[in-house]
Parts: sequence; structure tokens; C-alpha cells
Amino acid sequence: MSELRIEVTRGGAVESAHRAIAVAVDADGAVALARGPADMPVFPRSAVKVLQALPLVESGAADVFGFGNRELALACASHSGEDGHADLAGEILGRAGLGEGDLECGCHWPFDMPVALDLARRGIDPTQLHNNCSGKHSGFLCTAVHLGEETRGYVGADHPVQRRVRDAIAQTTGAPVGTELPAGIDGCAIPTFAAPLRSFAHAFAKLGAGIGVEPERARAGRRLIEACMSEPWLMAGTRRACVALMEAAPGRVFAKTGAEGVFCGAVPELGLGFAIKAEDGATRASEASVAAWLAVLLRPHDAALAERYEALSRHPLRNWAGTQVGEVRVAGL
Amino acid sequence: MSELRIEVTRGGAVESAHRAIAVAVDADGAVALARGPADMPVFPRSAVKVLQALPLVESGAADVFGFGNRELALACASHSGEDGHADLAGEILGRAGLGEGDLECGCHWPFDMPVALDLARRGIDPTQLHNNCSGKHSGFLCTAVHLGEETRGYVGADHPVQRRVRDAIAQTTGAPVGTELPAGIDGCAIPTFAAPLRSFAHAFAKLGAGIGVEPERARAGRRLIEACMSEPWLMAGTRRACVALMEAAPGRVFAKTGAEGVFCGAVPELGLGFAIKAEDGATRASEASVAAWLAVLLRPHDAALAERYEALSRHPLRNWAGTQVGEVRVAGL
Repeated sequence: MSELRIEVTRGGAVESAHRAIAVAVDADGAVALARGPADMPVFPRSAVKVLQALPLVESGAADVFGFGNRELALACASHSGEDGHADLAGEILGRAGLGEGDLECGCHWPFDMPVALDLARRGIDPTQLHNNCSGKHSGFLCTAVHLGEETRGYVGADHPVQRRVRDAIAQTTGAPVGTELPAGIDGCAIPTFAAPLRSFAHAFAKLGAGIGVEPERARAGRRLIEACMSEPWLMAGTRRACVALMEAAPGRVFAKTGAEGVFCGAVPELGLGFAIKAEDGATRASEASVAAWLAVLLRPHDAALAERYEALSRHPLRNWAGTQVGEVRVAGL
Repeated sequence: MSELRIEVTRGGAVESAHRAIAVAVDADGAVALARGPADMPVFPRSAVKVLQALPLVESGAADVFGFGNRELALACASHSGEDGHADLAGEILGRAGLGEGDLECGCHWPFDMPVALDLARRGIDPTQLHNNCSGKHSGFLCTAVHLGEETRGYVGADHPVQRRVRDAIAQTTGAPVGTELPAGIDGCAIPTFAAPLRSFAHAFAKLGAGIGVEPERARAGRRLIEACMSEPWLMAGTRRACVALMEAAPGRVFAKTGAEGVFCGAVPELGLGFAIKAEDGATRASEASVAAWLAVLLRPHDAALAERYEALSRHPLRNWAGTQVGEVRVAGL
């Protein structure tokens, strides 16, 4: 089947259109459903933060530093840099005897305009704690401290922190990441490893089902996914798609976005993991696609829930006067 | 020839890719060069603000209210809502005895994050004067006042202001806009009319050459295009692509962006108009494409200028730490 087609309409006509690859895979790696070339290598970016956080739990650092659902959700977050996110990141660092200056993720203004404007109005300039990846980096630093490793340079590909992350991604995806497949540098300075899109869906199916991974990894993966499902706001933020996707089916669906139009997730009750890539990298395309994809996967199982995702896959477009002028929708599903 | 392909790379691999339709047409309507389906109807959005401003000049309103290059550039602008833009829009309205409250374009925060943050830091909330279309709307209102028309409701499709705009677009493009072709409502509440992409290139070729239009329209079009080329900052703003494109060849190239990945423009010395549409609506794709397209058109004529546009078609991508992690580039040209 060809890619998903995401249409952006105006006055009833299609003004712009996106293509997205979508795949759902079970814990054995069998493709349950696919649209487009699901074997294509893609950079998963932040959509695999749960995989990147596995060593935090497996090493025992999460327990030593008292991580509950809130802290684990933040460790898997691409958060919006709201006060609650930045404050918790700073608190986590404090538990390991570290501070904002130990982060190596860099500073950026929150991507969400209202959040950024709120900071500016209060005369606050963002610190590294506001970086959408500060929770993940705080987790990296806690792991390094717990294991007695040098923290400086923890973002480098050869640092033990990043080697453990690469190994976790390689094991869960079953793909030769960082060797035969392309690698790059992510926005927050750590390595990002490309792999076939279907292999990321496979990784989340394994973690969702606790099959195909060692018991310790199964427990860690399940704990991280449950933390995200129970604290979606800490994993994302106000008005964010990940929150709407997870609040539509509390405790039943995990979904995490990544830059350049990626989503990864799991529907444990179906035994499936899924992955989405908008070919042009557009967030509006990946957000519509993931909701439509969840509707398709869930329809035979729970029609009412499928309807909720179907509704989330359509997004009205309004002009500055508030008039609806078009919509974003997924066509031909 | 197939569409332009715009690649977004990371670590040497292509992470995301866009497709764009590009066409160059002479004043007789002959296609000089095209990539992709140039007959496809597209909404030009703000890329045709020069066409929308023709009645302002032709009616005599521009002269009565003392419009020079600065005011005319703002009347054709999708400006960034910087102080110089908002202040001039307010001044223009004052000349017609009107004010911000007479605008019907709606309010929005400047799209450019640094500009928006600067307003917020100063405790300023944007007014309709900050709307990127406030110059165009001020021109609409001046025309209505000059012609003794009711100003209220000037954004409506049946108001004389918008009927004149539609007629100007239909005449210059030669397309049956608003009848056989789709129409929609733009972000600023006025109608937007779809037409084949090549017909917009044709319109700008005609205005650039002063051929195929009545002498009065030729003069008005030339005056508007020259105003934009002489005051590119007022037509756009700080850090904006339109400014870089026009400053690369002062007085020789006109280029104007529109929402959803559109560019229109003219290279009068080549006798050509051009138009670009990124199929997915991405600005990063249309900005790279228009620079690459200008490089292709100008190479046989001025290799040094073509090199400058070639350089503008490539855009390095950096992470928050400032490290280059990839680039946006146009492939296969």
C-alpha cells in the first residue's frame, strides 16, 4: 500500500499535501499493517526517548535517585519548557549533586509560542533546563553519577552513557544502528541513529508486550511506558498532541513524537508497536497520521475509541478572525 | 521534468525531503522552464500582494494619500510586525482619517520568534497593525475611502475592494479565478483565488515587462515591483528570505513569498516571471527552491549572480550548541 496522504484544505480544495509512512508490528517482528516503504531507514529523533532512558532504570540509578512516574516521564520527555518541566529537571539534577551548568543540551526558547511569550513577559531568559530534552539529559547525568563515570562530555558518541543508549536501541530494534546505518547529531547534541522505520515499531511492540527482551529490560521498558502514560503532561506539555493521544485512552496507548515528523508508540492490548514518519518532516502531518493510524489499528477492537482517534486526526484551520478556512485530514484510509 | 526535490540532511543522510513545482514564463505566456505539473491550480496566498495592490495605484488613491516606495512596499508586504512596519501602517491609515480599529485582518503575534519575544519583553500585545497583512489592508482602506465606498466589510468577497482585486488577478493571470477555479478565505479574512501555477508566473512576467496589460496597469505594476525592490525590509522584515533574495540583485529581481510554500516574482531583464509551490506547504522548501530556481534562470546570463542565488539555496542546520548537523539543499538541478 502507498503512503498515507495528509491533505491541508482551503475552501474545499486541497492546498497542500503530505505523505507519511506508517507501520504496526507485533513483538515477533511481523508487520500487522503498513503504508509506504516501512523498511526505509529514518532518524527516530525524540520518538525513542523511552529506549534512551532504559539504562537509567536498568542501571539502578532511577531507584537510587528516587525516580517515580513524574521523573521517569520527564526523562522520556520532549517537554515544552513550562515551569513545571524546568523546575523538575533542576530538582532531579540536584538529587545527583549537579545543576543546570552540568547539562550539555544547549538553550532554546520553548517551541510553543504561548509558553515562550509567557517567559519573555516575566523577563525570564530560558536556561538549559527549558531545553525540551532537559529531562532526558538529567537522566543521563544521574546514570553517569550513579555508575561513577565522568559526567563532562556525556553527550559524546564514545561516552559510556551514549554507548549504553546505542546498545539499548540496537538490541530492542534488532538493527545494526551506528554501524551499517547512518548516524547523525541530534538537536540536543547526542547521537541519533537511523534504522528501518519498522524496527522502531518492533522495539515498542517488544517493550509493550515484555517479549523478546531480557526480563530486566522488559520491566524497565514497561515502567517507562507506564510512567509516560500516567504523566503525559510531563512528557510533553500544554496543548501538545502526545497528551491528547494518551489522554484519549488512559493507560492503554503510548505515543511519543520526534522532530521531523516522527511518532513511535505502542498499544499493548493489541500486542503492537507502531511508527510513523512524515516524509517531509512536518509535525502537522505526523500528528494527523498517528491519530488516524491508531483509529485504524483500534477499530476492530474498540470502535468507540477508534472514533476518538479519528476525531483527533482532523484539525480545523482558522484564520486570525476565527473563521474556519480549511482543515488538516488524512485521506484515503 | 519532475518536481524539484529539496533534501534535509543529517549526518550526511537525507532525513526528510520536499517536492516543489517551479515554472518560469515569458510575457506571452510561453513556458521557458518548468519542473513538475505547472498547470496545477494553487492558492497563491500572499505571493500576489502586488496584484492585490494594483487598484490602490490605478484608482489614484496611492497618489492622493502620498504613497512613495515605502508605503507601496508595505502595501505589498507580508511584514514581520516590527515597530517600523506597524508604525507605518498606522500612519497610512491616519492619512485616510482611519485607525487600527478599521482594519478587519485580525491580530496575531509576529511569526518571527525574536520579534514576538521583543514585543512580549516590552509588555506590548500585538494589535491589528502587527498583522503581517496590515499594510495591504491599509491600502485596501485607502482605496475605499478615495472612491467614497463604505469601508466596513471591505474584506468581503462582494465588496468593491475585493471585486477589483479579483478582476486584477483574473486579467493579469488570464485565469477564470473565483468562477471555474477554487476560492478560499485567506488568513487575513479576504478571498484567495486558486489558479494554475504557471498563470501567476505569466502575470508577473507581464507586469515585469509591461507587456500584455493596459498602459495604466503596466505603470502601476512596475511602480509596485520597483517599490518592493527598493524597500525589501518593509515588504518583509529582519532575517527574511525575500530581503536576501532581492538584496542579492538590487533592482533586478522581485520575489515575494506566500503562506503554504509559495513564491512569485519576476526577473524583468530576462523577460520572465516565475512561480514556485512546495507541495507540502513548507517554507523551508519554497525558500530553498526559489533561490535555486533563480540560480538556474540567471546562470546563462550572469554566472556570478547565479552563484549568489545558488549559495542562498543551501541552508546549514545547527543544533542548540551551534554545531552544524545537516543542511537544506535542492537536489538534482
